[in-house]
Amino acid sequence: MSDIKETLEKAKKLASYKAVDDNVRAGMKVGIGSGSTIKYAVDRIKELGIPLTCVPTSFQSTQLIIAAGLELSDLSRTPELDVTIDGADEVDAQLNLIKGGGACQLQEKIVAASSKKLIIVADFSKDSSQFGDNWKKGIPIEVVPMAYVPVMIKLERSFGLKPVLRMAVNKAGPVVTDNANFVIDAQFTSIDNPADLATKIKMIPGVVETGLFINMAEKAYFGQKDGTVKERSIKL
Amino acid sequence: MSDIKETLEKAKKLASYKAVDDNVRAGMKVGIGSGSTIKYAVDRIKELGIPLTCVPTSFQSTQLIIAAGLELSDLSRTPELDVTIDGADEVDAQLNLIKGGGACQLQEKIVAASSKKLIIVADFSKDSSQFGDNWKKGIPIEVVPMAYVPVMIKLERSFGLKPVLRMAVNKAGPVVTDNANFVIDAQFTSIDNPADLATKIKMIPGVVETGLFINMAEKAYFGQKDGTVKERSIKL
Repeated sequence: MSDIKETLEKAKKLASYKAVDDNVRAGMKVGIGSGSTIKYAVDRIKELGIPLTCVPTSFQSTQLIIAAGLELSDLSRTPELDVTIDGADEVDAQLNLIKGGGACQLQEKIVAASSKKLIIVADFSKDSSQFGDNWKKGIPIEVVPMAYVPVMIKLERSFGLKPVLRMAVNKAGPVVTDNANFVIDAQFTSIDNPADLATKIKMIPGVVETGLFINMAEKAYFGQKDGTVKERSIKL
Repeated sequence: MSDIKETLEKAKKLASYKAVDDNVRAGMKVGIGSGSTIKYAVDRIKELGIPLTCVPTSFQSTQLIIAAGLELSDLSRTPELDVTIDGADEVDAQLNLIKGGGACQLQEKIVAASSKKLIIVADFSKDSSQFGDNWKKGIPIEVVPMAYVPVMIKLERSFGLKPVLRMAVNKAGPVVTDNANFVIDAQFTSIDNPADLATKIKMIPGVVETGLFINMAEKAYFGQKDGTVKERSIKL
Protein backbone atom coordinates (compact mmCIF):
# COMPACT_ATOMS: atom_id res chain seq x y z
CA MET A 1 0.00 0.00 0.00
CA SER A 2 1.35 3.45 -0.88
CA ASP A 3 1.97 5.93 1.92
CA ILE A 4 -0.96 8.14 0.87
CA LYS A 5 -3.36 5.22 0.59
CA GLU A 6 -2.21 3.91 3.96
CA THR A 7 -2.71 7.32 5.61
CA LEU A 8 -6.23 7.57 4.18
CA GLU A 9 -7.17 4.06 5.31
CA LYS A 10 -5.92 4.80 8.83
CA ALA A 11 -7.96 8.00 8.88
CA LYS A 12 -11.11 6.16 7.75
CA LYS A 13 -10.63 3.57 10.45
CA LEU A 14 -10.04 6.15 13.19
CA ALA A 15 -13.17 8.10 12.27
CA SER A 16 -15.31 4.97 12.02
CA TYR A 17 -14.21 3.52 15.34
CA LYS A 18 -14.83 6.79 17.20
CA ALA A 19 -18.24 7.29 15.55
CA VAL A 20 -19.39 3.79 16.47
CA ASP A 21 -18.10 4.09 20.05
CA ASP A 22 -19.88 7.45 20.50
CA ASN A 23 -23.19 6.64 18.83
CA VAL A 24 -24.00 2.93 18.79
CA ARG A 25 -25.48 1.18 21.82
CA ALA A 26 -26.86 -2.31 22.43
CA GLY A 27 -30.36 -2.86 21.09
CA MET A 28 -30.26 -0.03 18.57
CA LYS A 29 -31.64 -0.14 15.05
CA VAL A 30 -28.73 1.03 12.89
CA GLY A 31 -28.53 2.03 9.23
CA ILE A 32 -25.29 0.81 7.66
CA GLY A 33 -23.91 3.04 4.92
CA SER A 34 -21.93 2.09 1.81
CA GLY A 35 -18.45 2.86 0.53
CA SER A 36 -14.85 2.32 1.48
CA THR A 37 -15.06 3.79 5.00
CA ILE A 38 -18.06 1.82 6.25
CA LYS A 39 -16.25 -1.49 6.41
CA TYR A 40 -14.32 -0.13 9.40
CA ALA A 41 -17.55 0.85 11.16
CA VAL A 42 -18.87 -2.68 10.64
CA ASP A 43 -15.56 -4.08 11.91
CA ARG A 44 -15.93 -2.02 15.09
CA ILE A 45 -19.57 -3.01 15.58
CA LYS A 46 -18.52 -6.65 15.26
CA GLU A 47 -15.69 -6.16 17.78
CA LEU A 48 -18.08 -4.62 20.32
CA GLY A 49 -20.24 -7.74 20.09
CA ILE A 50 -23.45 -5.94 21.08
CA PRO A 51 -26.88 -6.96 19.78
CA LEU A 52 -28.10 -4.64 17.00
CA THR A 53 -30.57 -4.64 14.14
CA CYS A 54 -28.88 -3.48 10.94
CA VAL A 55 -30.53 -2.04 7.82
CA PRO A 56 -28.30 -1.82 4.73
CA THR A 57 -28.05 0.94 2.12
CA SER A 58 -26.83 -1.17 -0.81
CA PHE A 59 -25.87 -4.64 -1.96
CA GLN A 60 -22.32 -3.97 -0.69
CA SER A 61 -23.67 -2.96 2.69
CA THR A 62 -25.86 -6.07 2.91
CA GLN A 63 -22.80 -8.25 2.27
CA LEU A 64 -20.81 -6.45 4.99
CA ILE A 65 -23.63 -7.04 7.52
CA ILE A 66 -23.91 -10.71 6.59
CA ALA A 67 -20.13 -11.26 6.66
CA ALA A 68 -19.94 -9.71 10.15
CA GLY A 69 -22.71 -12.01 11.41
CA LEU A 70 -24.93 -9.06 12.38
CA GLU A 71 -28.73 -9.12 12.36
CA LEU A 72 -29.94 -8.04 8.92
CA SER A 73 -33.28 -6.27 8.54
CA ASP A 74 -34.93 -3.92 6.02
CA LEU A 75 -37.15 -0.85 6.04
CA SER A 76 -40.36 -2.89 5.71
CA ARG A 77 -39.72 -4.61 9.05
CA THR A 78 -37.66 -1.82 10.62
CA PRO A 79 -38.87 1.48 9.15
CA GLU A 80 -37.61 3.66 12.01
CA LEU A 81 -33.93 3.62 12.90
CA ASP A 82 -32.01 5.12 15.80
CA VAL A 83 -28.91 6.09 13.85
CA THR A 84 -27.33 5.68 10.42
CA ILE A 85 -23.56 5.70 9.99
CA ASP A 86 -22.42 6.48 6.47
CA GLY A 87 -19.59 7.99 4.49
CA ALA A 88 -19.65 10.95 2.10
CA ASP A 89 -17.68 12.21 -0.89
CA GLU A 90 -17.66 15.78 0.40
CA VAL A 91 -18.85 17.43 3.62
CA ASP A 92 -19.25 21.20 3.74
CA ALA A 93 -19.07 23.54 6.75
CA GLN A 94 -22.84 23.10 7.48
CA LEU A 95 -22.57 19.29 7.18
CA ASN A 96 -24.33 19.31 3.84
CA LEU A 97 -23.06 16.34 1.86
CA ILE A 98 -22.30 15.22 -1.65
CA LYS A 99 -22.77 11.46 -1.84
CA GLY A 100 -23.05 8.96 -4.66
CA GLY A 101 -19.49 8.33 -5.82
CA GLY A 102 -20.38 4.68 -5.24
CA ALA A 103 -23.82 5.12 -6.90
CA CYS A 104 -25.67 4.18 -3.67
CA GLN A 105 -27.12 7.61 -2.87
CA LEU A 106 -30.77 6.61 -3.39
CA GLN A 107 -30.86 3.82 -0.81
CA GLU A 108 -28.48 5.79 1.43
CA LYS A 109 -30.85 8.77 1.48
CA ILE A 110 -33.93 6.60 2.05
CA VAL A 111 -32.25 4.93 5.03
CA ALA A 112 -30.86 8.22 6.41
CA ALA A 113 -34.33 9.80 6.14
CA SER A 114 -35.68 6.89 8.20
CA SER A 115 -33.17 7.50 11.02
CA LYS A 116 -33.28 9.81 14.01
CA LYS A 117 -29.62 10.69 13.39
CA LEU A 118 -27.22 10.57 10.46
CA ILE A 119 -23.55 10.36 11.48
CA ILE A 120 -20.84 10.78 8.84
CA VAL A 121 -17.46 9.06 8.91
CA ALA A 122 -14.70 10.14 6.54
CA ASP A 123 -11.05 10.80 6.10
CA PHE A 124 -9.65 14.36 6.11
CA SER A 125 -9.84 14.63 2.29
CA LYS A 126 -13.67 14.83 2.40
CA ASP A 127 -13.71 17.83 4.74
CA SER A 128 -14.50 21.06 2.86
CA SER A 129 -15.62 24.56 3.70
CA GLN A 130 -17.80 24.58 0.57
CA PHE A 131 -18.84 22.17 -2.17
CA GLY A 132 -16.27 21.78 -4.90
CA ASP A 133 -13.24 22.47 -2.71
CA ASN A 134 -12.33 18.79 -2.84
CA TRP A 135 -14.92 16.78 -4.85
CA LYS A 136 -14.50 17.52 -8.55
CA LYS A 137 -16.75 14.92 -10.18
CA GLY A 138 -20.04 16.78 -9.70
CA ILE A 139 -23.38 15.97 -8.12
CA PRO A 140 -24.39 12.32 -8.63
CA ILE A 141 -28.00 12.27 -9.87
CA GLU A 142 -29.89 8.98 -10.17
CA VAL A 143 -32.28 8.97 -13.15
CA VAL A 144 -34.81 6.70 -14.78
CA PRO A 145 -32.94 5.30 -17.83
CA MET A 146 -35.56 6.44 -20.41
CA ALA A 147 -35.22 10.04 -19.14
CA TYR A 148 -31.46 10.52 -19.13
CA VAL A 149 -31.27 12.66 -22.29
CA PRO A 150 -34.06 15.15 -21.41
CA VAL A 151 -32.77 15.34 -17.81
CA MET A 152 -29.24 16.13 -19.05
CA ILE A 153 -30.66 18.84 -21.32
CA LYS A 154 -32.54 20.42 -18.39
CA LEU A 155 -29.53 20.24 -16.04
CA GLU A 156 -27.44 22.09 -18.58
CA ARG A 157 -30.01 24.68 -19.76
CA SER A 158 -31.76 25.45 -16.48
CA PHE A 159 -28.91 25.19 -14.00
CA GLY A 160 -25.73 25.66 -16.04
CA LEU A 161 -24.39 22.29 -14.89
CA LYS A 162 -22.16 20.07 -17.04
CA PRO A 163 -23.83 16.66 -16.95
CA VAL A 164 -21.97 13.46 -17.82
CA LEU A 165 -23.58 10.01 -17.97
CA ARG A 166 -21.48 7.82 -15.67
CA MET A 167 -19.98 4.93 -17.62
CA ALA A 168 -19.36 1.48 -16.18
CA VAL A 169 -16.15 -0.46 -15.78
CA ASN A 170 -16.36 -4.25 -16.25
CA LYS A 171 -19.68 -3.67 -18.10
CA ALA A 172 -20.35 -2.13 -21.52
CA GLY A 173 -22.28 1.13 -21.40
CA PRO A 174 -23.43 3.15 -18.39
CA VAL A 175 -23.35 2.29 -14.70
CA VAL A 176 -26.66 0.69 -13.62
CA THR A 177 -27.46 1.23 -9.94
CA ASP A 178 -28.75 -1.32 -7.42
CA ASN A 179 -32.20 0.11 -8.29
CA ALA A 180 -31.70 -0.33 -12.07
CA ASN A 181 -31.29 3.39 -12.78
CA PHE A 182 -28.53 5.44 -14.46
CA VAL A 183 -26.29 8.03 -12.76
CA ILE A 184 -25.54 11.47 -14.19
CA ASP A 185 -22.60 13.37 -12.65
CA ALA A 186 -23.48 17.04 -12.90
CA GLN A 187 -20.35 19.13 -12.68
CA PHE A 188 -20.61 22.65 -11.25
CA THR A 189 -18.38 25.66 -10.73
CA SER A 190 -19.99 26.75 -7.45
CA ILE A 191 -23.24 26.11 -5.58
CA ASP A 192 -24.71 29.18 -3.90
CA ASN A 193 -27.77 27.55 -2.35
CA PRO A 194 -27.44 23.77 -2.03
CA ALA A 195 -30.96 23.28 -0.56
CA ASP A 196 -32.61 25.15 -3.40
CA LEU A 197 -30.55 23.34 -6.04
CA ALA A 198 -31.31 19.92 -4.48
CA THR A 199 -35.05 20.64 -4.63
CA LYS A 200 -34.98 21.96 -8.18
CA ILE A 201 -33.00 18.98 -9.46
CA LYS A 202 -35.21 16.41 -7.76
CA MET A 203 -38.32 18.10 -9.19
CA ILE A 204 -37.14 17.39 -12.76
CA PRO A 205 -39.34 14.48 -13.93
CA GLY A 206 -37.15 11.40 -14.30
CA VAL A 207 -34.81 12.31 -11.45
CA VAL A 208 -35.13 9.64 -8.75
CA GLU A 209 -32.73 11.17 -6.24
CA THR A 210 -29.77 13.51 -5.99
CA GLY A 211 -26.53 13.04 -4.10
CA LEU A 212 -27.04 16.36 -2.29
CA PHE A 213 -27.89 15.56 1.35
CA ILE A 214 -29.04 18.85 2.87
CA ASN A 215 -29.75 19.34 6.58
CA MET A 216 -29.60 15.60 7.17
CA ALA A 217 -26.29 14.90 8.93
CA GLU A 218 -25.88 16.14 12.47
CA LYS A 219 -22.30 15.08 13.15
CA ALA A 220 -19.22 14.19 11.12
CA TYR A 221 -16.03 12.46 12.22
CA PHE A 222 -12.95 13.13 10.07
CA GLY A 223 -9.88 10.98 10.64
CA GLN A 224 -6.75 13.13 10.49
CA LYS A 225 -3.20 12.50 9.24
CA ASP A 226 -1.84 12.86 12.78
CA GLY A 227 -4.01 10.04 14.15
CA THR A 228 -6.60 12.27 15.80
CA VAL A 229 -10.28 12.60 14.89
CA LYS A 230 -11.82 15.99 14.12
CA GLU A 231 -15.51 16.25 14.95
CA ARG A 232 -18.06 18.71 13.58
CA SER A 233 -21.68 18.95 14.75
CA ILE A 234 -24.64 21.09 13.82
CA LYS A 235 -28.04 21.59 15.37
CA LEU A 236 -30.75 20.41 12.96
CA MET B 1 -72.36 -1.57 -23.33
CA SER B 2 -74.37 0.19 -20.62
CA ASP B 3 -75.78 3.63 -21.37
CA ILE B 4 -73.42 5.34 -18.93
CA LYS B 5 -70.38 3.53 -20.29
CA GLU B 6 -71.45 4.35 -23.86
CA THR B 7 -71.92 8.05 -23.01
CA LEU B 8 -68.45 8.19 -21.43
CA GLU B 9 -66.82 6.47 -24.40
CA LYS B 10 -68.48 8.89 -26.83
CA ALA B 11 -67.29 11.81 -24.71
CA LYS B 12 -63.71 10.48 -24.69
CA LYS B 13 -63.78 10.07 -28.45
CA LEU B 14 -65.19 13.55 -29.06
CA ALA B 15 -62.54 15.20 -26.88
CA SER B 16 -59.69 13.21 -28.43
CA TYR B 17 -60.71 13.89 -32.03
CA LYS B 18 -61.04 17.64 -31.42
CA ALA B 19 -57.73 17.82 -29.55
CA VAL B 20 -55.85 16.02 -32.32
CA ASP B 21 -57.46 18.14 -35.04
CA ASP B 22 -56.59 21.37 -33.19
CA ASN B 23 -53.04 20.53 -32.10
CA VAL B 24 -51.37 17.89 -34.29
CA ARG B 25 -49.76 18.80 -37.62
CA ALA B 26 -47.66 16.87 -40.12
CA GLY B 27 -44.03 16.47 -39.15
CA MET B 28 -44.59 17.01 -35.43
CA LYS B 29 -42.93 15.09 -32.62
CA VAL B 30 -45.84 13.95 -30.45
CA GLY B 31 -45.97 12.41 -26.97
CA ILE B 32 -48.68 9.76 -26.76
CA GLY B 33 -50.34 9.41 -23.35
CA SER B 34 -51.78 6.33 -21.66
CA GLY B 35 -55.20 5.30 -20.48
CA SER B 36 -58.65 4.61 -21.84
CA THR B 37 -59.07 7.95 -23.67
CA ILE B 38 -55.83 7.93 -25.62
CA LYS B 39 -56.80 5.11 -27.93
CA TYR B 40 -59.23 7.53 -29.60
CA ALA B 41 -56.49 10.11 -30.10
CA VAL B 42 -54.33 7.45 -31.76
CA ASP B 43 -57.32 6.39 -33.90
CA ARG B 44 -57.70 9.98 -35.09
CA ILE B 45 -53.97 10.39 -35.77
CA LYS B 46 -54.10 7.22 -37.85
CA GLU B 47 -57.17 8.48 -39.79
CA LEU B 48 -55.43 11.76 -40.62
CA GLY B 49 -52.59 9.79 -42.20
CA ILE B 50 -49.98 12.49 -41.58
CA PRO B 51 -46.31 11.75 -40.90
CA LEU B 52 -45.44 12.07 -37.20
CA THR B 53 -42.82 10.88 -34.76
CA CYS B 54 -44.47 9.40 -31.67
CA VAL B 55 -42.95 8.95 -28.21
CA PRO B 56 -44.89 6.68 -25.83
CA THR B 57 -45.58 7.09 -22.10
CA SER B 58 -46.04 3.42 -21.19
CA PHE B 59 -46.06 -0.13 -22.51
CA GLN B 60 -49.75 0.31 -23.41
CA SER B 61 -48.96 3.48 -25.32
CA THR B 62 -46.12 1.79 -27.22
CA GLN B 63 -48.51 -0.96 -28.31
CA LEU B 64 -51.09 1.60 -29.51
CA ILE B 65 -48.42 3.37 -31.60
CA ILE B 66 -47.19 0.11 -33.12
CA ALA B 67 -50.74 -1.16 -33.83
CA ALA B 68 -51.58 2.11 -35.62
CA GLY B 69 -48.47 1.83 -37.80
CA LEU B 70 -47.10 5.16 -36.57
CA GLU B 71 -43.40 5.99 -36.27
CA LEU B 72 -42.20 4.97 -32.80
CA SER B 73 -39.35 6.86 -31.15
CA ASP B 74 -38.10 7.47 -27.60
CA LEU B 75 -36.66 10.31 -25.53
CA SER B 76 -33.05 9.33 -26.26
CA ARG B 77 -33.55 9.92 -29.99
CA THR B 78 -36.33 12.52 -29.68
CA PRO B 79 -35.83 14.38 -26.39
CA GLU B 80 -37.79 17.49 -27.40
CA LEU B 81 -41.43 17.13 -28.44
CA ASP B 82 -43.90 19.60 -29.95
CA VAL B 83 -46.95 18.40 -28.07
CA THR B 84 -48.10 15.59 -25.77
CA ILE B 85 -51.71 14.46 -25.72
CA ASP B 86 -52.70 12.61 -22.57
CA GLY B 87 -55.65 11.85 -20.32
CA ALA B 88 -56.10 12.63 -16.63
CA ASP B 89 -58.03 11.29 -13.66
CA GLU B 90 -59.02 14.74 -12.49
CA VAL B 91 -58.51 18.24 -13.89
CA ASP B 92 -59.02 21.27 -11.64
CA ALA B 93 -59.98 24.83 -12.57
CA GLN B 94 -56.32 25.84 -13.10
CA LEU B 95 -55.64 22.72 -15.22
CA ASN B 96 -53.66 21.11 -12.46
CA LEU B 97 -54.02 17.34 -12.84
CA ILE B 98 -54.22 14.17 -10.84
CA LYS B 99 -52.84 11.32 -12.95
CA GLY B 100 -51.76 7.77 -12.28
CA GLY B 101 -54.95 5.74 -12.05
CA GLY B 102 -53.27 3.58 -14.69
CA ALA B 103 -49.92 3.70 -12.83
CA CYS B 104 -48.17 5.42 -15.77
CA GLN B 105 -47.64 8.83 -14.18
CA LEU B 106 -43.83 8.62 -14.07
CA GLN B 107 -43.30 8.13 -17.81
CA GLU B 108 -46.25 10.43 -18.54
CA LYS B 109 -44.67 13.25 -16.55
CA ILE B 110 -41.22 12.70 -18.08
CA VAL B 111 -42.71 12.89 -21.59
CA ALA B 112 -44.94 15.88 -20.76
CA ALA B 113 -41.93 17.71 -19.29
CA SER B 114 -40.10 17.11 -22.59
CA SER B 115 -42.92 18.71 -24.64
CA LYS B 116 -43.60 22.32 -25.57
CA LYS B 117 -47.31 21.74 -24.83
CA LEU B 118 -49.36 19.27 -22.78
CA ILE B 119 -52.94 18.88 -24.02
CA ILE B 120 -55.43 16.92 -21.91
CA VAL B 121 -58.32 14.87 -23.31
CA ALA B 122 -61.06 13.58 -21.00
CA ASP B 123 -64.73 12.94 -20.56
CA PHE B 124 -66.90 15.30 -18.49
CA SER B 125 -66.47 13.19 -15.32
CA LYS B 126 -62.82 14.32 -14.97
CA ASP B 127 -63.68 18.04 -14.94
CA SER B 128 -63.52 19.49 -11.41
CA SER B 129 -63.30 22.91 -9.83
CA GLN B 130 -60.96 21.51 -7.18
CA PHE B 131 -59.16 18.27 -6.43
CA GLY B 132 -61.34 15.69 -4.73
CA ASP B 133 -64.62 16.82 -6.28
CA ASN B 134 -64.60 13.75 -8.52
CA TRP B 135 -61.47 11.64 -7.98
CA LYS B 136 -61.72 9.80 -4.66
CA LYS B 137 -58.79 7.38 -4.82
CA GLY B 138 -56.09 9.85 -3.77
CA ILE B 139 -52.79 11.00 -5.22
CA PRO B 140 -50.90 8.18 -6.98
CA ILE B 141 -47.31 8.22 -5.75
CA GLU B 142 -44.68 6.02 -7.37
CA VAL B 143 -42.11 4.74 -4.86
CA VAL B 144 -38.99 2.61 -4.77
CA PRO B 145 -40.22 -0.76 -3.39
CA MET B 146 -37.75 -0.88 -0.45
CA ALA B 147 -39.03 2.54 0.73
CA TYR B 148 -42.79 2.01 0.72
CA VAL B 149 -43.21 1.65 4.49
CA PRO B 150 -41.16 4.71 5.57
CA VAL B 151 -42.76 6.77 2.76
CA MET B 152 -46.26 5.77 3.93
CA ILE B 153 -45.34 6.75 7.50
CA LYS B 154 -44.14 10.18 6.31
CA LEU B 155 -47.21 10.79 4.13
CA GLU B 156 -49.45 10.12 7.10
CA ARG B 157 -47.48 11.95 9.81
CA SER B 158 -46.22 14.96 7.87
CA PHE B 159 -49.14 15.63 5.53
CA GLY B 160 -52.17 13.97 7.15
CA LEU B 161 -52.75 11.81 4.07
CA LYS B 162 -54.22 8.31 4.20
CA PRO B 163 -51.79 6.19 2.17
CA VAL B 164 -52.77 2.81 0.72
CA LEU B 165 -50.38 0.50 -1.16
CA ARG B 166 -52.08 -0.24 -4.48
CA MET B 167 -52.69 -3.96 -4.85
CA ALA B 168 -52.60 -5.81 -8.16
CA VAL B 169 -55.31 -7.78 -9.93
CA ASN B 170 -54.16 -10.87 -11.86
CA LYS B 171 -50.95 -10.80 -9.78
CA ALA B 172 -50.37 -11.58 -6.11
CA GLY B 173 -49.28 -8.59 -4.04
CA PRO B 174 -48.88 -4.96 -5.07
CA VAL B 175 -49.05 -3.35 -8.50
CA VAL B 176 -45.58 -3.10 -10.04
CA THR B 177 -45.22 -0.24 -12.53
CA ASP B 178 -43.58 -0.32 -15.97
CA ASN B 179 -40.50 1.04 -14.14
CA ALA B 180 -40.57 -1.72 -11.49
CA ASN B 181 -41.77 0.53 -8.66
CA PHE B 182 -44.81 0.40 -6.32
CA VAL B 183 -47.73 2.86 -6.23
CA ILE B 184 -49.14 4.39 -3.05
CA ASP B 185 -52.55 6.07 -3.34
CA ALA B 186 -52.55 8.90 -0.80
CA GLN B 187 -56.11 9.87 0.05
CA PHE B 188 -56.80 13.46 1.10
CA THR B 189 -59.72 15.51 2.36
CA SER B 190 -58.67 18.71 0.61
CA ILE B 191 -55.53 20.16 -0.98
CA ASP B 192 -54.97 23.85 -0.29
CA ASN B 193 -51.77 24.30 -2.25
CA PRO B 194 -51.22 21.56 -4.85
CA ALA B 195 -47.83 22.94 -6.03
CA ASP B 196 -46.43 22.99 -2.51
CA LEU B 197 -47.76 19.51 -1.73
CA ALA B 198 -46.37 18.08 -4.99
CA THR B 199 -42.90 19.41 -4.12
CA LYS B 200 -42.98 18.21 -0.53
CA ILE B 201 -44.08 14.70 -1.52
CA LYS B 202 -41.48 14.34 -4.26
CA MET B 203 -38.75 15.46 -1.85
CA ILE B 204 -39.42 12.44 0.41
CA PRO B 205 -36.52 10.06 -0.26
CA GLY B 206 -37.87 7.00 -2.06
CA VAL B 207 -40.60 8.89 -3.93
CA VAL B 208 -39.87 8.62 -7.66
CA GLU B 209 -42.78 10.73 -8.89
CA THR B 210 -46.21 11.95 -7.88
CA GLY B 211 -49.41 12.02 -9.93
CA LEU B 212 -49.84 15.75 -9.25
CA PHE B 213 -49.13 17.59 -12.53
CA ILE B 214 -48.93 21.26 -11.58
CA ASN B 215 -48.67 24.08 -14.15
CA MET B 216 -47.96 21.59 -16.92
CA ALA B 217 -51.16 21.37 -19.01
CA GLU B 218 -52.14 24.39 -21.05
CA LYS B 219 -55.40 23.16 -22.53
CA ALA B 220 -58.02 20.51 -21.74
CA TYR B 221 -60.80 19.13 -23.94
CA PHE B 222 -63.76 17.60 -22.08
CA GLY B 223 -66.27 15.60 -24.12
CA GLN B 224 -69.81 16.38 -22.92
CA LYS B 225 -72.98 14.31 -22.63
CA ASP B 226 -74.66 16.41 -25.30
CA GLY B 227 -72.04 15.66 -27.93
CA THR B 228 -70.17 18.96 -27.63
CA VAL B 229 -66.62 19.53 -26.39
CA LYS B 230 -65.87 21.96 -23.60
CA GLU B 231 -62.41 23.54 -23.80
CA ARG B 232 -60.42 25.15 -21.00
CA SER B 233 -57.06 26.90 -21.45
CA ILE B 234 -54.63 28.64 -19.19
CA LYS B 235 -51.58 30.78 -19.83
CA LEU B 236 -48.47 29.05 -18.42
